[in-house]
Amino acid sequence: MADIPARTEMKVTTGPIRGSRKIHVASPNDPSVRVAMREIVLEPSCGEPPLRVYDCSGPYTDDNARIDIMAGLPELRADWIRGRGDVEEYDAREQKPEDNGLKGPDRSAGVAPFPNVRKRPLRAKAGANVSQMHYARQGIITAEMEYVAIRENVGRAKLREAAIRDGEDFGAEIPDYVTPEFVREEVARGRAIIPNNINHPESEPMAIGRNFLVKINANIGNSAVASDVANEVDKMVWSIRWGADTVMDLSTGRNIHDTREWIIRNSPVPIGTVPIYQALEKVDGIAENLTWEIFRDTLIEQAEQGVDYFTIHAGVRLAYIPMTAKRVTGIVSRGGSIMAKWCLSHHKESFLYDHFEDICEIMKAYDIAFSLGDGLRPGSIADANDEAQFSELATLGELTQIAWKHDVQVMIEGPGHVPMHKIKQNMEKQLKACGEAPFYTLGPLTTDIAPGYDHITSAIGAAMIGWFGTAMLCYVTPKEHLGLPDRDDVKVGVVTYKLAAHAADLAKGHPAAKLRDDALSRARFEFRWRDQFHLSLDPDTAEKYHDQTLPAEGAKTAHFCSMCGPKFCSMKITQEVRDFAATQNQPSSSFLAAQPVASEDAEAGMAKMSETFREKGGEIYLPAE
Amino acid sequence: MADIPARTEMKVTTGPIRGSRKIHVASPNDPSVRVAMREIVLEPSCGEPPLRVYDCSGPYTDDNARIDIMAGLPELRADWIRGRGDVEEYDAREQKPEDNGLKGPDRSAGVAPFPNVRKRPLRAKAGANVSQMHYARQGIITAEMEYVAIRENVGRAKLREAAIRDGEDFGAEIPDYVTPEFVREEVARGRAIIPNNINHPESEPMAIGRNFLVKINANIGNSAVASDVANEVDKMVWSIRWGADTVMDLSTGRNIHDTREWIIRNSPVPIGTVPIYQALEKVDGIAENLTWEIFRDTLIEQAEQGVDYFTIHAGVRLAYIPMTAKRVTGIVSRGGSIMAKWCLSHHKESFLYDHFEDICEIMKAYDIAFSLGDGLRPGSIADANDEAQFSELATLGELTQIAWKHDVQVMIEGPGHVPMHKIKQNMEKQLKACGEAPFYTLGPLTTDIAPGYDHITSAIGAAMIGWFGTAMLCYVTPKEHLGLPDRDDVKVGVVTYKLAAHAADLAKGHPAAKLRDDALSRARFEFRWRDQFHLSLDPDTAEKYHDQTLPAEGAKTAHFCSMCGPKFCSMKITQEVRDFAATQNQPSSSFLAAQPVASEDAEAGMAKMSETFREKGGEIYLPAE
Repeated sequence: MADIPARTEMKVTTGPIRGSRKIHVASPNDPSVRVAMREIVLEPSCGEPPLRVYDCSGPYTDDNARIDIMAGLPELRADWIRGRGDVEEYDAREQKPEDNGLKGPDRSAGVAPFPNVRKRPLRAKAGANVSQMHYARQGIITAEMEYVAIRENVGRAKLREAAIRDGEDFGAEIPDYVTPEFVREEVARGRAIIPNNINHPESEPMAIGRNFLVKINANIGNSAVASDVANEVDKMVWSIRWGADTVMDLSTGRNIHDTREWIIRNSPVPIGTVPIYQALEKVDGIAENLTWEIFRDTLIEQAEQGVDYFTIHAGVRLAYIPMTAKRVTGIVSRGGSIMAKWCLSHHKESFLYDHFEDICEIMKAYDIAFSLGDGLRPGSIADANDEAQFSELATLGELTQIAWKHDVQVMIEGPGHVPMHKIKQNMEKQLKACGEAPFYTLGPLTTDIAPGYDHITSAIGAAMIGWFGTAMLCYVTPKEHLGLPDRDDVKVGVVTYKLAAHAADLAKGHPAAKLRDDALSRARFEFRWRDQFHLSLDPDTAEKYHDQTLPAEGAKTAHFCSMCGPKFCSMKITQEVRDFAATQNQPSSSFLAAQPVASEDAEAGMAKMSETFREKGGEIYLPAE
Repeated sequence: MADIPARTEMKVTTGPIRGSRKIHVASPNDPSVRVAMREIVLEPSCGEPPLRVYDCSGPYTDDNARIDIMAGLPELRADWIRGRGDVEEYDAREQKPEDNGLKGPDRSAGVAPFPNVRKRPLRAKAGANVSQMHYARQGIITAEMEYVAIRENVGRAKLREAAIRDGEDFGAEIPDYVTPEFVREEVARGRAIIPNNINHPESEPMAIGRNFLVKINANIGNSAVASDVANEVDKMVWSIRWGADTVMDLSTGRNIHDTREWIIRNSPVPIGTVPIYQALEKVDGIAENLTWEIFRDTLIEQAEQGVDYFTIHAGVRLAYIPMTAKRVTGIVSRGGSIMAKWCLSHHKESFLYDHFEDICEIMKAYDIAFSLGDGLRPGSIADANDEAQFSELATLGELTQIAWKHDVQVMIEGPGHVPMHKIKQNMEKQLKACGEAPFYTLGPLTTDIAPGYDHITSAIGAAMIGWFGTAMLCYVTPKEHLGLPDRDDVKVGVVTYKLAAHAADLAKGHPAAKLRDDALSRARFEFRWRDQFHLSLDPDTAEKYHDQTLPAEGAKTAHFCSMCGPKFCSMKITQEVRDFAATQNQPSSSFLAAQPVASEDAEAGMAKMSETFREKGGEIYLPAE
C-alpha cells in the first residue's frame, strides 16, 4: 500500500510561536542529549535576558527544521534505544483488514495509509525488559532521564543558589534542582513515568510525576460520524504548539489504524490510546464478542506502531458494576461501559483483569506505560466519590503493584465530575491506594450546569487537584458533552489546561514557576505591550484582543490601554508615585526597608510610619508639578 | 434637556431565555412582594416538574412585560419606600456641566440625556436612617427582606423536610430554609447587605452575604477612548440576562452622568460605582486637585440618581503607600492610585479617610452600601498577600466598625492576583478583620501568564474563595488587561463567574444548589438534548455547539452525539446494562441495596459480592440478545 500517494492536503501549522525562538540545550554529560526549549525574546529596553520556557511543540516551531509529514519526524531516540543492546528487529504482525474497522478503511474520506510504515519494529530481546522503570531500578540513568532532567530544570539553574520556595506541596518532594539521578529515583520508585515506546523513537522524553511540572494531555481522534485523518494530524501538531505534553488518539470508527500511524510518526510527544476502542471496532461494536485474543492482537498492533501508553480499564470488576445502578449517570467511561457490558454478559471478571500479567509482558517488551483507566469514574456531581469509584480505585492500586513487579510504568486515571469539597479526598485516596503512582485526571468538572463552558468548570477542578498532587491533567474542551472538538476548541482546551497546570505549579511552589509570571507582570507594569503578549500562553489572542480596541501600531508602545485611557491608568499613576518618590532625597524603597512594620500589626507600624512622615515630611514628599 | 429626543438606536435584548418562562412567586405574608423567578420547562417524557432557578434578568425576559428604555423600568419598591414614612422629596441638586466631564457632554457620540429624570429625589427625613441595616437592627422585617428570603429559597421548599447537606462551609451558618427573620438577622449583624438606594426603586431586592447564594458582579462602562451610552445600557441588560446579580458602572471620560442615569433607570439589579472616577473627571484628571467638597458633591449627585453601592478607597492610608514601592506592579487599583497620588502630594491622610463619618451620613440618608475598596490589592502573583494589602485590610476592618456604628451597610473588596495556596489566608484575614462583613473579590487571578484567558485564571480563584466564604465575585472578562470588554466578552465573563459561583455554592453545601446539576445530569443520561441545553447556564451556546457537528433536527432526540457516535456511547451502554439488569428476576438496584459494602473496605465487600454473584449468578445475569 506504500505506493498509494498520500493526499497533498496534509497540512500542519509550522513556524515559531510569536516572539519566540527554538533553542536546544546540550547535556554536559551526554552530547547526544540536546533538549528543545523555547526562548521568549524581550524588548532590549528592559535589559532582561530572554526567558526560557518548557516547550512541547517539537520541530514544528523550529525555523531551521524541515517538516515532511509524509516522512515523519527524525528519530531522536533511535541510537539510544539500539545502543542499550537489548532490542531486536522482527517482522511486524501482518496487517489485517479489520485493523481499520470491520468494514476496512474508508478511502473516500481521503485517507491514504502513511507512506513510510516500518516493516521491522523493535521489541525487547527474549528475557529483556526495556522499560525506563527497569533501567532505573538497575541504577541506570538513561539518555531519556538525562533529557527529562534538563527539560524540567528550565529556569532553575540560576535559582540554584538561592531558590525561593513559596508554596504548599502537600507532602510532595519537589527538589530545588532536578538531577538525572533524581529522575532515575522517581522512575524507579514508580512516582514518575517516562512514557516512550521503543517504536516511537521520534518522541522527546518527558516525565509525568508529582515532583515534576504538572503536565497536560489533549485528546484528539476521529469518531464514526465526524472528522478525517488530515484534521487529526493537524490537531495533534496544533495541540502541542500550545502546550499539550501528551496526546491521546481516541479515534473510533474506520481508518483507525492508519490514523494512528500518521499521528505517531509525526508526533514529538507521547501518544496514548485506549486499545479497547479499536478492539471493539474489530467485533463490529458488539462488546460481548470481545475476546482476550482479539484484544491482545490489538495491543501488539499498537505496540508495534509505537503507542506510548495504553488506557486499560482492568479495574472494572464484576462486583462493582451493580454499585453503579443507582447512580444518576451510571457508567460514563466508554471503556468502562464496554467492559461492564462484557462482564455482565459473560458473568465473569474481564479478560483485562484476568490477563493483567500477560498485558504486563507486552508492556515491558516495548516500554509502554499503563494508564489504568477509571471505568467507573463519576459522570455527575451526584455520583462523585461513591462506592463504585473508590472500589475501582482500590483495585487499580493492586494492579499497580502487579505492574511494578514487572517493572512496568504506571499512571492512574481519575475523575471526572467532582464538586470542590470532594476533590482533595480523591488525591489522598489515590496516593494511598496506588503507592504514589502518578495520578492523571480528567478535570474534574466542579459543576454539571455549564455545557459549552466545561473547559472552565473543569479547569477549576484541574488546577486544584494539580495543586494537591495530580501529575497530569487531561484537558476538557468547550465542546465536552456536546460534540467533537474542532481546531479552535483544541486550542482553547490546551491553553486553559496549561494555565490550570501552571496555577498548580505556582501553588505547589515549583522553584522557577513564578519566573514567567514575574516577567510578564514587569512587562505589564512597564507597558511593554509586545513583551506582555509574547510572554503569555497565547500571544496571538492577547495581541488580537488588545488590537480590537486599539489597533494602531503606536498603541503598542503607549503607556495606557483602552480600559482606562491615558489619564486613568493606575499603572501610570503608580509609576508617577514611584518616580516622584525617587526624586526626593530619600527614595521610598529604602524608606520602606527602614521601617520595622510587622504585617500582623499594621496599626502600630502605621502609627510609627506616620510619625516618621511627620518628622521628615516636607523633605520627602512634595506636591508633584 | 428633557425635550432632546433620545437616540432611537437604544436597543436591548428582550424575550425569555431559551426554554424558560418568567414566573412571580407571591409572598404569603405580603401580597405586594412578588418575587421574579425563572422556570425551566422540561420535556413531558421525563415526568419532572419545571425547575425554578434564581433570576436576575428583570422584566426583559418577561414575555408579558412592556419594555420602554426611554421611560425606565416600573418602580417596584416605590410604595415600600414611601410606606415606611421616613423619607421626603426635595429639589435635586442642580446639574452642573462638569457632571458629564470637565468638557461637558459629548453629544457627537449619540448621547442624549435620559428623557425622564426625576427632579425630586428622596432622602431620609432629618434624623432618620433609611438603611436596611437600621431597620433590621430595629427588629423590622422589610418587604425587601421578605423578597430576599423567597428569592434565596428557590428549590429549598420541597427539601425543607429532608434537606441533604453535603458540603464544607468553613464555619458559615447556611440555613436549611431562609426565613425573612433570618435575612433580618444577617443584615442586622452586618453579615449580609441588601444594596438598594431609595432612589433606585426599580431594583429587585437581593442579598450579598456568606450565608446566601454566592453572587456575581459585572463591570461595564465607557472609557475615554471607547464605547458609548447605548452600548453600555445594552451591556447592562445583556449581563443580567446571563446572571449578573449587580452591575458596576465604571464609566470614565465624558457623558458620565448621563450614562449612569440611563443605566440606573433601566436596571433591576443594584448598580455600583466608584465615585472618585467621576470626581477626577471634574478636576480634569489631576488627582491632587481633588477636594472633599468636589467628592461630597459627587456622592450627592450619584445618591440622587440612585446608585446602590459606592466603592470608597478610604483604606489607602498615607503610611501604606511606601509599602508598595518594592512591588512588581505597585498600585493597580485605579482608585487606589488616585488616592495614593493625592496623599503623597498633600502629604496627609486622604479626605476619604478623614471624612469617613461624613460619608456615612450620606450613605444612611439614601441607603447606599459601602463597598470598601482595596486600593492596594496585589496586581501580580509576586505582590499577593503582602504588607500593603493586609495593612489596608486592617483599616477596612476599622472603617467597617465605624460604618456599622451608623447602621450603614458594608461590604469589603478583595484581590486581585493571588496564587492558589495564598487564597484561603485572604478569606480568613478578611473574616477576622472585618467582623464577617461580606467579602467581594475580583477573581482572584491564580496566574499572571494568560492574558486573553483571565476569565479562567480568575474563575479558578473565584470559585475557591467563594467556597471559602466570599459573598460576591466580581467578574473578569477575556479582555482583562488588554482592552474594554465588548458584548461577547461580557457574556463570557458573566457565564464564567456564574459557574464559579455555583461551584462554590455546591461545595459550601447550599441545600438546593445541586438540584440543577442533578436535573441536567439526568437529562444528559437520558439523551434529552433540549432539556440539557435549557438547564445549562447558556442554552444558546450549548445548542449551537451541539449543532456544529450534528445539525439535523433528529439529532436532538438521538441517543448519541458526535463525540462517540451511536455504537460507542457509554451512556447508551450503561442504559443497556441497566435495562438488562432490570429484566432479570432481581434488579441490580435492589441487589445493590442488599449488599453491606462499606466504601472504606471495598476489598472485603467485593469479595462478599463476588460470592453472592457466584451463588445467584446464572439467574441474575444472562448474555444479552
